[in-house]
Formats: sequence, C-alpha cells, structure tokens
Amino acid sequence: MQGQNQQQAYDRGITIFSPDGRLYQVEYAREAVKRGTASIGVRTNDGVVLVVDKRIRSPLLEGTSVEKLHKVDDHVGIASAGHVADARQLIDYARRQAQVEQLRYGEPIGVEPLTKMVVDNIQQYTQVGGARPFGVALIIGGVEDGEPRLYETDPSGTPYEWKALAVGGNRNDIEDYLKENYTEEMDLDAGVGLALEALDSVNEEGLQAEGLGVATVDVETEQYRELPVDEVDEYLTEHDLLADDEPEE
Amino acid sequence: MQGQNQQQAYDRGITIFSPDGRLYQVEYAREAVKRGTASIGVRTNDGVVLVVDKRIRSPLLEGTSVEKLHKVDDHVGIASAGHVADARQLIDYARRQAQVEQLRYGEPIGVEPLTKMVVDNIQQYTQVGGARPFGVALIIGGVEDGEPRLYETDPSGTPYEWKALAVGGNRNDIEDYLKENYTEEMDLDAGVGLALEALDSVNEEGLQAEGLGVATVDVETEQYRELPVDEVDEYLTEHDLLADDEPEE
Amino acid sequence: MQGQNQQQAYDRGITIFSPDGRLYQVEYAREAVKRGTASIGVRTNDGVVLVVDKRIRSPLLEGTSVEKLHKVDDHVGIASAGHVADARQLIDYARRQAQVEQLRYGEPIGVEPLTKMVVDNIQQYTQVGGARPFGVALIIGGVEDGEPRLYETDPSGTPYEWKALAVGGNRNDIEDYLKENYTEEMDLDAGVGLALEALDSVNEEGLQAEGLGVATVDVETEQYRELPVDEVDEYLTEHDLLADDEPEE
Amino acid sequence: MQGQNQQQAYDRGITIFSPDGRLYQVEYAREAVKRGTASIGVRTNDGVVLVVDKRIRSPLLEGTSVEKLHKVDDHVGIASAGHVADARQLIDYARRQAQVEQLRYGEPIGVEPLTKMVVDNIQQYTQVGGARPFGVALIIGGVEDGEPRLYETDPSGTPYEWKALAVGGNRNDIEDYLKENYTEEMDLDAGVGLALEALDSVNEEGLQAEGLGVATVDVETEQYRELPVDEVDEYLTEHDLLADDEPEE
Amino acid sequence: MQGQNQQQAYDRGITIFSPDGRLYQVEYAREAVKRGTASIGVRTNDGVVLVVDKRIRSPLLEGTSVEKLHKVDDHVGIASAGHVADARQLIDYARRQAQVEQLRYGEPIGVEPLTKMVVDNIQQYTQVGGARPFGVALIIGGVEDGEPRLYETDPSGTPYEWKALAVGGNRNDIEDYLKENYTEEMDLDAGVGLALEALDSVNEEGLQAEGLGVATVDVETEQYRELPVDEVDEYLTEHDLLADDEPEE
Amino acid sequence: MQGQNQQQAYDRGITIFSPDGRLYQVEYAREAVKRGTASIGVRTNDGVVLVVDKRIRSPLLEGTSVEKLHKVDDHVGIASAGHVADARQLIDYARRQAQVEQLRYGEPIGVEPLTKMVVDNIQQYTQVGGARPFGVALIIGGVEDGEPRLYETDPSGTPYEWKALAVGGNRNDIEDYLKENYTEEMDLDAGVGLALEALDSVNEEGLQAEGLGVATVDVETEQYRELPVDEVDEYLTEHDLLADDEPEE
Amino acid sequence: MQGQNQQQAYDRGITIFSPDGRLYQVEYAREAVKRGTASIGVRTNDGVVLVVDKRIRSPLLEGTSVEKLHKVDDHVGIASAGHVADARQLIDYARRQAQVEQLRYGEPIGVEPLTKMVVDNIQQYTQVGGARPFGVALIIGGVEDGEPRLYETDPSGTPYEWKALAVGGNRNDIEDYLKENYTEEMDLDAGVGLALEALDSVNEEGLQAEGLGVATVDVETEQYRELPVDEVDEYLTEHDLLADDEPEE
Repeated sequence: MQGQNQQQAYDRGITIFSPDGRLYQVEYAREAVKRGTASIGVRTNDGVVLVVDKRIRSPLLEGTSVEKLHKVDDHVGIASAGHVADARQLIDYARRQAQVEQLRYGEPIGVEPLTKMVVDNIQQYTQVGGARPFGVALIIGGVEDGEPRLYETDPSGTPYEWKALAVGGNRNDIEDYLKENYTEEMDLDAGVGLALEALDSVNEEGLQAEGLGVATVDVETEQYRELPVDEVDEYLTEHDLLADDEPEE
Repeated sequence: MQGQNQQQAYDRGITIFSPDGRLYQVEYAREAVKRGTASIGVRTNDGVVLVVDKRIRSPLLEGTSVEKLHKVDDHVGIASAGHVADARQLIDYARRQAQVEQLRYGEPIGVEPLTKMVVDNIQQYTQVGGARPFGVALIIGGVEDGEPRLYETDPSGTPYEWKALAVGGNRNDIEDYLKENYTEEMDLDAGVGLALEALDSVNEEGLQAEGLGVATVDVETEQYRELPVDEVDEYLTEHDLLADDEPEE
Repeated sequence: MQGQNQQQAYDRGITIFSPDGRLYQVEYAREAVKRGTASIGVRTNDGVVLVVDKRIRSPLLEGTSVEKLHKVDDHVGIASAGHVADARQLIDYARRQAQVEQLRYGEPIGVEPLTKMVVDNIQQYTQVGGARPFGVALIIGGVEDGEPRLYETDPSGTPYEWKALAVGGNRNDIEDYLKENYTEEMDLDAGVGLALEALDSVNEEGLQAEGLGVATVDVETEQYRELPVDEVDEYLTEHDLLADDEPEE
Repeated sequence: MQGQNQQQAYDRGITIFSPDGRLYQVEYAREAVKRGTASIGVRTNDGVVLVVDKRIRSPLLEGTSVEKLHKVDDHVGIASAGHVADARQLIDYARRQAQVEQLRYGEPIGVEPLTKMVVDNIQQYTQVGGARPFGVALIIGGVEDGEPRLYETDPSGTPYEWKALAVGGNRNDIEDYLKENYTEEMDLDAGVGLALEALDSVNEEGLQAEGLGVATVDVETEQYRELPVDEVDEYLTEHDLLADDEPEE
Repeated sequence: MQGQNQQQAYDRGITIFSPDGRLYQVEYAREAVKRGTASIGVRTNDGVVLVVDKRIRSPLLEGTSVEKLHKVDDHVGIASAGHVADARQLIDYARRQAQVEQLRYGEPIGVEPLTKMVVDNIQQYTQVGGARPFGVALIIGGVEDGEPRLYETDPSGTPYEWKALAVGGNRNDIEDYLKENYTEEMDLDAGVGLALEALDSVNEEGLQAEGLGVATVDVETEQYRELPVDEVDEYLTEHDLLADDEPEE
Repeated sequence: MQGQNQQQAYDRGITIFSPDGRLYQVEYAREAVKRGTASIGVRTNDGVVLVVDKRIRSPLLEGTSVEKLHKVDDHVGIASAGHVADARQLIDYARRQAQVEQLRYGEPIGVEPLTKMVVDNIQQYTQVGGARPFGVALIIGGVEDGEPRLYETDPSGTPYEWKALAVGGNRNDIEDYLKENYTEEMDLDAGVGLALEALDSVNEEGLQAEGLGVATVDVETEQYRELPVDEVDEYLTEHDLLADDEPEE
Repeated sequence: MQGQNQQQAYDRGITIFSPDGRLYQVEYAREAVKRGTASIGVRTNDGVVLVVDKRIRSPLLEGTSVEKLHKVDDHVGIASAGHVADARQLIDYARRQAQVEQLRYGEPIGVEPLTKMVVDNIQQYTQVGGARPFGVALIIGGVEDGEPRLYETDPSGTPYEWKALAVGGNRNDIEDYLKENYTEEMDLDAGVGLALEALDSVNEEGLQAEGLGVATVDVETEQYRELPVDEVDEYLTEHDLLADDEPEE
C-alpha cells in the first residue's frame, strides 16, 4: 500500500530519482519494452543473426509493414522491441550518424561507435527535462573490422555487448534457452537455427514464416540481408518449428 | 478503485510512461479516435478505396463541409477518424511534404515515404513536452510505382500497411466483416462494395449517399477521385444498403 | 461523485485528453460559448443573413458598443457568441488574413479559405501549451464566386458549412426552429425574417430593435451591410415580434 | 462544500476555463476591482465627466498621490478602480499608444481606437500563460471628432461604451442612481453634479473635496482638466453633499 | 479551518488572484516587510528626515554594515524595511535610474519620477511569472524643484506621497504617534526629534545612537547627509530618549 | 501538526513567500549551512584571521582536499560553511570579479565591493525561478585601504560586517565565546588563538592540526597566507587545545 | 510515518532544499551510486590503482562492454560506480576537457584541475532546474607533476582527494578494510593486491578475473594501462582470491 503511494509520487514530473536511487520513468520505459514482442540476436563466427517476432494481429495487415528489423547501413542492422514509433526515431538517428561518418571519413561507421552515439542520445532523454525516455530497446548487429559485433541499447542509455541476447517480451526465458544452447563455434546457419528455436521455446503454437523477420550480416560480404519468407520457412521446416495451423489467409 | 487512482496520476502532465509501460495520453488520444465515426480503406488490384461515414447531425449542415476525405496529391488521398481539427493539421502537413518532394525531385511522393513523414511528425507530439498528441487516425491510400498502397497512422506515430482496414468507431466489428469477406482478387468496384457493406454491417438504419464520402485512387489513372452523390447512391442501391427512411430534407 | 473527481483532474494543466478521449478545456470553452447570447446565420439564394442578440443590460449602455457583428472585408461579416474579448482577437486575425490575401493576389479572400485560416489558428491554442483555447464561436458569412457561403468555427477549431445555424445560448432550440421553417427558396428578406422569428422563439418578452444586430451580404452587391435600427424595427413590426414593453429609456 | 472544492481547482495555474465556461482568474480580478473605491463617468452633450473616490486613509497621506485620475492625452482622461499598480501599467500603455498615433499620423488618437488597443492588451494577459490578468477597470473619457465618448474596459478585455457608468466598489448602487437621474440633455455642469450625487448616494458620511478627484473633457476646448479642490468644494456645497465632520487635519 | 485550506491553495504558484480579488504573494511580501524593524520618514518645510531602527543583534556586528539607509543621489535618500537583500536590488535599480537621467538630461532626477520608475519595476514582479515579489518597502525622500518630497513604495508597486510615515514593524503604532504630533510648521530639527520620539514610542527599552540611522536632505543644500553617531546621541539626550542600559560593548 | 502541513506547502515550488512573510527555501538553505562544520573569522588591528573545522571523516582522506579555505585574491580569503559544491561556485564567481576589477582599474578589489557583488549574485537565486538558493555561508576577510575587513554572506544575500563571527554548526555557542573574549586591542597572534579557543569550546575531544585550516591576511603585507600544519600545531600546543588522542594515521 | 510523508514532498520537483537543509534529489542520486557495484582506488608511491567489480550477469554478456573503467587521457583514468549511462556523459566531458587543455596549453591536464572541472559540471545539475543530478560517483586517478593523485567526485559535485577509497555498493565495508591495511609505503604491485583483497572482503563467492577490471597509472611511464585478464588472474591466484567455481562459460 505504502509502496503504491510512494511509487505514484514519481510518475508525474520529469525523470527524477526515487529515494532508493532508481529512475522510475526509465524503469517504466523498460516495461514498455517488455510489452513488445521479442527480438533476438546471435553472434557467430561467420556473422550476426537478428530474428524478430512480428506477432501480426490480423491477416489483413501486411507483415512487411511491421517495423522491427531495420537496415541502418550496408553492414549494420537493428532489431527493436517496444514502442515502435520511438524505435523509428532512434533508427533514423542511427542512419544519419552512419551517413555523416561515411561522408566525413570515407569509411563505414563501426558498430561500437554507432552504438555509443545512439545510447548517448537515449541518455539525454533520461536526464534533461521536457521529454520522456525512449520506450524501446535495440539490438545493433553488424561487422566491424571483419569481426561480428552484437550490441544492446536499453532505455537508460546503457550499451552492452553480447554473444547472444533477447529483448522484449519473454526476454528471460529466451535468454535461458540461449545460455543453454549457445556455443562459440556456431556458423551463421546454426545461429539462425538457434535464434528460431529460442523464440519457439516461449511460443506454444509454433512459428510461421510470415510472422517472423530474419536478417544476417556475414563477415565475408559485410552485407545486411533480410531473408525472404520462403527461406525462413525452410529454416522452420528444417528445425521442426512450424505451427500446426496454417495462417488463415 | 486503486486502478482509478493510479490512472488519474497520469492525466496531469506531459506524455509520460505508466508503471506498466503505457503512454496514457496516447491511449486517451486513441479513445478520441474511437469517438469519431468510422473510416474504411480497401486495397484492390485496381486501386484503393476510401469510404467515410460523415454522420451528418442536421439537415441544415452541408455534408461537403464535414472533412473526413482529403485529396493530398493527385495520386494520394487520406481518410481520417477522430478529432477533426487535429486531422486538418496533419493533412496540411502531408500536403506540404508532397509539394516539397515534387519540387525537390520532380516526382510525386511515394505513399510509404509520405506515411513515414506523417508518423514521425505524430511521434514528436508524444515524446517532447509542451503539446498533446494528435487525437486522430489516418488512412493514407494511393498508388506508388503502379502499385496500390494503403497505410494507417495511429496516435502513437506507428505506421501499418493494410489490405483492408477501418479506423474510428466500431473499428473491430467492421474489421471482422472485412476479414471474412475480403479477397485479394477484388477489383475496384468490388472494393467499393465491400467497404460500403462493411460500414452497413455496423449501421442498423442503413446508409444514405449524402452521409457518406467515397474516393478511389486507381492504378491506371493514378488519380484521386471523389465519387459524386448519385454514384454513391447507385452503389447503395446495387448492394441493397439504402436506408428505409429518406432523409428529412 | 467519482465523475466529479475525475473531471477535476483535467482542469488544471494544459489542454490534454481525458481517459475517454475528450479535451475538457475545449469542452469548457464550449460552455463559455453557451453562456453568451445567441447569434444566428441564414443562407438564402440572394445572400447571407447574420442576426445577433445583444442583450443590453442597462439603458445607459450604448448598444452599438456591444461587439457581436463585425465587418471583416467588403464581402464578409462575422457574428460571434461567447467570450467577447476572445472574439476580438479572432476578428482581428481574420481581418489581417483578408488584407494579406488582397495584397498578395489582388483578389478578395474566399469565405472558405478565410474560415480555414481562422480554425487552424484556433486549433493551435488547443494543442500547444502555454495558452488556453478561445472561448468563442463564430459565424462567418459572405459571398464567394457569386455564391452565398455560411460557416461556423467552434472552440476546437473545426469548420462547418451551414444553410442556417445558431451559436451561443439556446442554440438547440433555435436550430429546431430553423430546421422546421428553413426552405432553400428563401430570398434575403425572408431570411432576415426567419432569423428574427427563430430568435424570438426562445425569447419570452419579445424583441427590441435596439437590442439586436442584423447584417446581410447579398450576392448582387457582394457588400456587407448592417441594418439601421429603424429598418430592424420594421422587420419586427412586420413579423409581429415587437416586445410589449417599450425600452425604459 | 463541493462548490468550494471545485473552485479551488481553478485557482492554481494559468487562466483556464472552469467546467461551466468561466475564467476564474478573470472573475477574481473583477473582485480586485470591487475592492477598490468607486470611479464614475458621465457623458453630457458638452463633454465627459470623471469623478473618483480616493478614500484617503490618513491625514498624513497626500491626496494628490492617490492615483485614480490620469491625463492620457490632451483630449483623453482615464479614471481607474482596483489594483493601483496594475492601473499604472495600463495608463502608461495608453499614453505610449497615444504618442505613437500622434507621431505616426499627426492627429490625436480617437477615444474608441485607444480603448480597443488597451482591451487587446488586457485580453492577452487572460489567454497566454506566464502572467496574471490585470486587476483593474478603467473609464476612458474624451472627445473624438467633436463628440464626447465614454468607455469602460474590464479585466477580461471587453470594451463597452456608456452614457454614464461606475466601476469599483458599490458599482451597482451607483449605477441605479445614475439610471434614475441621467438625462441626455444634461450639460457638463449638471454632469459633474450627477456624478457627485451618485457617489454621495452610497456614502453615509457625505463627501469631502480633498478626498475626491474630478476631471472633465469638454467638446469645445477638447482639453482634459482636473478641477482644483476649491472648485470641487463649491460643487459639494451647491449640491448639499458636504460631510458634517471636517477632516481631522 | 476552511480559510486555512483555501489560503494554502494560493501559496504554491506564481502570483495569482484569490477568489476575493487579493494577491496573496503580495500580501505575504507585506508580512516580510512587517518582520523588519521600522523606518520612519518626516517631511518638514526645511527638508526631509529619514530614521531607521537597525536592531543590532550582537556587539560584534558592525552597525554600519546593516543597510537600511541608502544615498541614491546627492539629493535623494532611501530608507528601507523588510528583506535586506531585496532592498539592495531596488536601491541599485534606483541609483542606475538616477545616473541615466543625469546623463541623459544633465539634470538631477526628480523624487516623484524616480519613485514611479521604482514602483513600475516592483509591479512587474507581481504580474509576470518566474519570480516572486520584492519583500521590501521603501521610503524615498529628497528635494525636487526646491520642495521636500517624501514617498513610499509598497510590495504591490503602489506609490504614495506622505507628510510623515513609517514602514516595517509597529507601523501602525508609530503612525498613530506621528498623526497626533506632526505639524506642518516643523523645521528639520523638530522633524528629526519627532521621528526619534515616534520610534521611541514603540520601544520599551529606549534608544541608543549606535542602533539608529538618521539622514536628512534639506532644501537649502539639497544634499543627502547621514548624521554621525554623536550627533544622533545629542538628539537622544535632548529628547530624553536614551536607553537606561548602555550597550554591552 | 497544522504547522507541519502548512510548511510542506512551501517546499515544492520556487522560492516564494509564506503567509508570515518568510522565504522557506532560503531558511532551509540556512539549515544546510548549519549542517556544515563551523568556520570562524576574527578581525584584529593587525589583520584578519580565518579558521575552519574540516572534520576529516577518514584517515585515508587528504585533509588538504576538503575545501573550506580559499584564496580569492592576494589580499582576500574566504572561509565557507555548508554545501561544499555550492561554495565552489561562489568562490569562482568571487575570483572572476576580483580579476575583472584588477584588469579594469589596475587596482585590487575592495573587500566590501567584492562582498556586495557576491551577495547580489546570491540574491538572484532567491528571487528568480528555475534554480534553488545557494546552501552556503561565506566569511570574506581581507585588507582594504590598509584596514582589515571581515564580512559574512548568508543564503538570503544579505551582507554583514563583523569584528568576529562564526558560520556553520554550533554558530551560536561559538559566537557566545567570541562575545565574551573578543577585545579590539588583539593582535593577529591573539586573533588566531581566540578563533582556535572558540572552536575548541564546542569541541569535546579537542582539536588536531590536521583537521583544521588557518589563514591570515595581515595589514602589513596585505597577503593571504595559509598556515602550515606544524604552525597550527604550535598554536594548539601553546593554547593547550590539543586532542588527547593522536589521529589514527 | 510523518517522515515518510515529509520525504515524499521533496521528490516531485527540481532539486530543492528540505526543511533540514538537505537536497533529497542529490541524496537519492547517492542511492543510485550505492546500487552499482563497487569501484576501488589506491594511491601508492609508484602510481595509482583502479579496480572495478563488473558483476557480469550472464555468460553471454561480453565483460569488456561493461563500462566501468575509462581511459580519459594518457595519464588519467576514471573508475565509475552507479548509473552507467550518466557516467558515460561525465567521461565524455572529462575527455573533452583534457583535449581542450592539451590543445590550448600544449601540456597534459592536471588531475586536480580535471577533477574540479568535472565537479563544477556536476554541481550545475543540482542547482539549476530542468534536469536531474548525475547518479554516479567517479574515481579519477592519474599522475600530475610526477605525483600520483587520486580523487573522488560525488553526485553533489564535491571533490575529495584520497589515499585509498571505494565508491558504490559496500563502500563502507571496503573502506574499513582499506583503513586497516593501507600503508603509505606500498608499491604499485601491493596496491593492486590491496584493492583486490578489499573487494574480496565483501564478496562471499570469491573473485574471477573476467568479472574484474584493473588499471594502473604509474609515475614512471605516466601511462594509463588496463591489465589483461591473465594478468588479473595471476594477481588473484597470488592472493588466493579466486572463486571456487569456475565461470559457467
């Protein structure tokens, strides 16, 4: 009861500290991330894998318009979870930074520097008044100096580098699956499989290719590539992850 | 009771997150959309259809002045639902963007890029303080590269692409009708019929041409066209959707 | 009781949405309009009629100084209801827009474009913080391309076109009278008569010329004209609407 | 009780509408006017009369420093009631406007245009945030095109033209007296007498010349003139309005 | 109880009107004035007298550093009561105005114009948001055109001219003494005596020269002059006002 | 209880007046000063003495980094008490003013003018919104025109000149000691002794040189000088003020 | 209970004083620091040691991406504790200051001047409105003029110089360990050992090299150097601090 009252006190204004040193608006923004469907990233020796669950709520909705996978530069992709409109702002920001870097130095931006530009932008919205934090988490994956790199940005503006991770709904369960099954020797193909299996592990009805987004950036080509639906379907068949019921459409 | 109190806490200030990660002001703006009469969009192979319910409250009111259908460019139209005055601002914004694009590149703006410019504008009003979100949803329909395209913008600033959709009052019931009856093989004529039938399905007293707005953008001419009242009347007669009672006037 | 509490929560800050999607400050501004005496507009084939009830509270007050009828341009007049000081701001805005248009294009401004400039101005005060909405409704009447036009602006910034309407106190009762008695074939003379009768229908003590304002814009001359008191008196006599008691003065 | 609570809700922020469409801050500013002593204006064929009650609270206070009568231009005077420091701001504003007009057009400013400039200034303080309304009412009297003119500005920014009026404390009782005794045929002398009698009608102890301010602007000379104490005393003697008790000093 | 609650409602924000038309922040600023020790001004035919009670709380404190008497220009002095740091701001403002006037017109500033510049500055802090009112009252005394002038500024920004007055603690009692004993025929010497006697009348332990400040501006020299301690002591002896107990030091 | 509630009402916003004319934020800032350890100033004929109690909370902390004594110019030092980070801002401000004065006039700044620049800066933070007051008190000591000067600035922005004073914790008790033992004939050496004894009088465990800061500005050299630890130790030994327990280190 | 209520009153707005003179937002920011894992600094004759506890929550997380150790300039490093995203801002600020200093004077910035620039930046966020304080503490270690220097910055903006210190979780227990075991004669090697032992003293499961960060700046090379994992592992083995359980990975 008291906790309830105390908590209310922090809902009203700008992002401020609670007596126990937490930033409630940032923590609530994390809840907004959890309300979104999961996105998964896996780093393999051959490159990085991004898998997103689009949860298409109607057969009339075009799955391609559910924006959770984004190409940011030739060699970098971002998967988001949480508030879609907020994600769009950060993606735009990342694209502009990549272009500026390319123009200024004639070289593609590194995945780590790009991540740090994004998190610094996010942090400002948690400290300076007049705006709310971003209600979105991003998985930034790409190739930098021939190495696959996989980063997370959270609503506080903290960057993390991962071998494999999930953001959004069911994050903990998916990460448990990843922890048990991830190996450093995986190739890109196995990475796609692991990510799909991890997503399936929290999904009782099985998966459908139309409701998924899969992208890779491999170290050889250094190119971001979104897999077409039939290729996703092959992966699902191969890993025996297909939902029993065909989509209505 | 507690829920009631908790909810009140989020009504007062700028758009901020609730403890469960929702943006109440945005959700309330969605309620404003539901308070408006329905607007419907249908995409067919031949083009897109926009149908709006004007709900004219008095015979002395000029139906043409109820602004729910808007020509934005030769090849793009927008149907709105919700707060009319807010819709006007977004329509103006869309028109300016279309003109700028035309001037800058000598080509008509694409439906998707236009939609994304509009949603980015909407999103800003949900994150930065000093203003409230827009209480309006838009259906943006048009032809891009010879293909019919149909988008929705919601008060959070999220874009969706649809085969057929409704926004505003009775959205769910109308979409149920659309889901059951939509087929990808429809021509424009059938699309107009489907949209009118879907609107009729939630309207006990039947429809009247004067209280409706119907527009199309077909892929051949790539021209936005609002149907005159008699043409709408023919559709209603053909589909047996005419209200029993003639309008008073 | 709860409704009472809930409502209070929305009174304090800038114009924001309530949980059911309403903008309370805008609705309260509508109440300000209802607190004002009625203004009436009637569109006939020959032109438009504006009639205002000045409700002069003292014989020592100069009726001419009660500002409810305003000439905006040679061919456009505005009748207001609600907060007088707010109306003055919008009238000034409309006049400036008319002058700018005249200077820029060498042609008088259209009634519809003028209306839309005014409502866009009104809308801004309902969305952006730091000011309250305008507590006034306007009837904008005039001639555009040889056609009589009659518009309403409300505190939300929504424009409506009417054949005949009332704003301010007793709006509903007056509109009932107009609905029953309006015909499209009326000439300007009959329009003046209808407007006065409609006003009389909600006025138990009858009307007095000194307490009324009557103006017309006819399609032939395209000139705004306020009727002198004796001419109004003739109309009242002719329609048997004169108050039994002479004014005290 | 409830009314009490409801009212409190509107006291805290900027000037906003109450549920019944009133602007409480403006209404409270009107209370500030009522807390001031009365000022009276009378328009006669020969010119206008301004009379103010200074209510000098101590014999050590110099009556001339109680600022309720102000010369604004050669041909215009203003009597104020309410918050003295606020009145000073509006008087300064009016003087600057008169000077600007004189410089720009080489002609003295009209009383009506001057009034409208002042009320537009007042209105801004009731709509835009960051300041409170002016707690003062003004009587603006002068000669324009050879005609005597007498205006009132109230805290909402509404202008009124009067034959005779009072602002400040006891306004209603004084206006009742004026209504009964005002005639249009009065000369300036009778106007001064009427104003003093009206003030005396609400003053049980009678009047004293030292505690009054009397000014006229006559149509012949078009000059604002404040009457010296002995002249005021003659009027009081003539109309048998002198207080029984001499002032203490 | 209710009054208590109601009052609290006005304490929180910027300076706004209460339902009965008062500006609470201004009234609270008046309380800040009352919390200060008294300052007294007396106008005689020969010049003006300013007397201030410094109430030195410790023998280690340098009495000269308690700033209640200020020379503003050669011919003008100011005595303050209330919040000392606020007084410093207004004194600085007055000094700058006096210098500007001297530079611009080559003549010393008049006491009345100076007073009005100061009160206009004070008023702004009571109407425009973002700052609180000044918690100080000033007595401005000097010679203008050979005449002694004595003004008061209060926290609302209202100017008053006095023959003799007190501001600060015990104002009412001191003014009662002044009313009974002031005569217009006093010379400067008698004026100093009257001011000291008036201050003594509210001071049970008698006065000490070290705890007082006395200044005069006489009409002959038109020079502000602060009396040295021994001269003040002579006055106290002469008027039998010396405290029985010598100061501890 | 009521007092408690009433007080809370003033805690929330900017610095405003309470009903009894106090500025609570300023008074709370004074509490911040009391929470700091004491600083003492003594003025002698030979110069001024500043003594500060550093209260070093750990043997690992470098005592020299506890900033309570500051050289501001060659001839001026400042001892602070209260919020250390706030003190740093005011010290920086004072140093810049001293440099500007030196550059502009080629002469060292006077102690009094410097003090007044500092207090005017402090006052602004108590009147204008958007920031809180400074939670610090300063003792400004130095030599001006060959004379030792000793000033205090408090959080309201009021300047005081003292013969001897304390700020911070135990202020009253220390000042009682100073009052009883201060004499105007002291030389600098005796001044240092008095200050140390006064500090010791409120310190049950005795003093340690490492936990103290002692500085002087003597009239002969006009140089600010901080005493080394061994010299402080000598004073402590001489005055028998050494703590029984040696510091742990 | 009352304390609870009182405390809540200070949570809502900008950083203001509580009645007992504390800045709650700053104190809550200190809680944010305590929520972070510990960072430790030790100063030896040969240089400074920085040790951070990264507490890696998952074997899939790349420990190198947990940013608690930062090279700021060749000769300066910073260890942080608390809100990571806030720390990034201050580190960036410190780096820019170091670069500017290098460019401007051609010399590396001193550790003390750098610390003071950082704390002044921190202080601004505790006094001026519109932003919250930084929820982070820094240990700034480096070599200045051939001497090792070790500073702390806290959320209030106060700088401290230490021989050895800890910030973040378990600060007090770690400092107790440091107090007992620190000696001024330590060399760099012993310093690393002491810091690791101190961290181990509060860590029941022992330490793992992968979860630690160790850096040194020695006086000879004046170079910041982060120790590779195997070197850290050697230290742990040598001091018998290794956790029993190997990390899962």
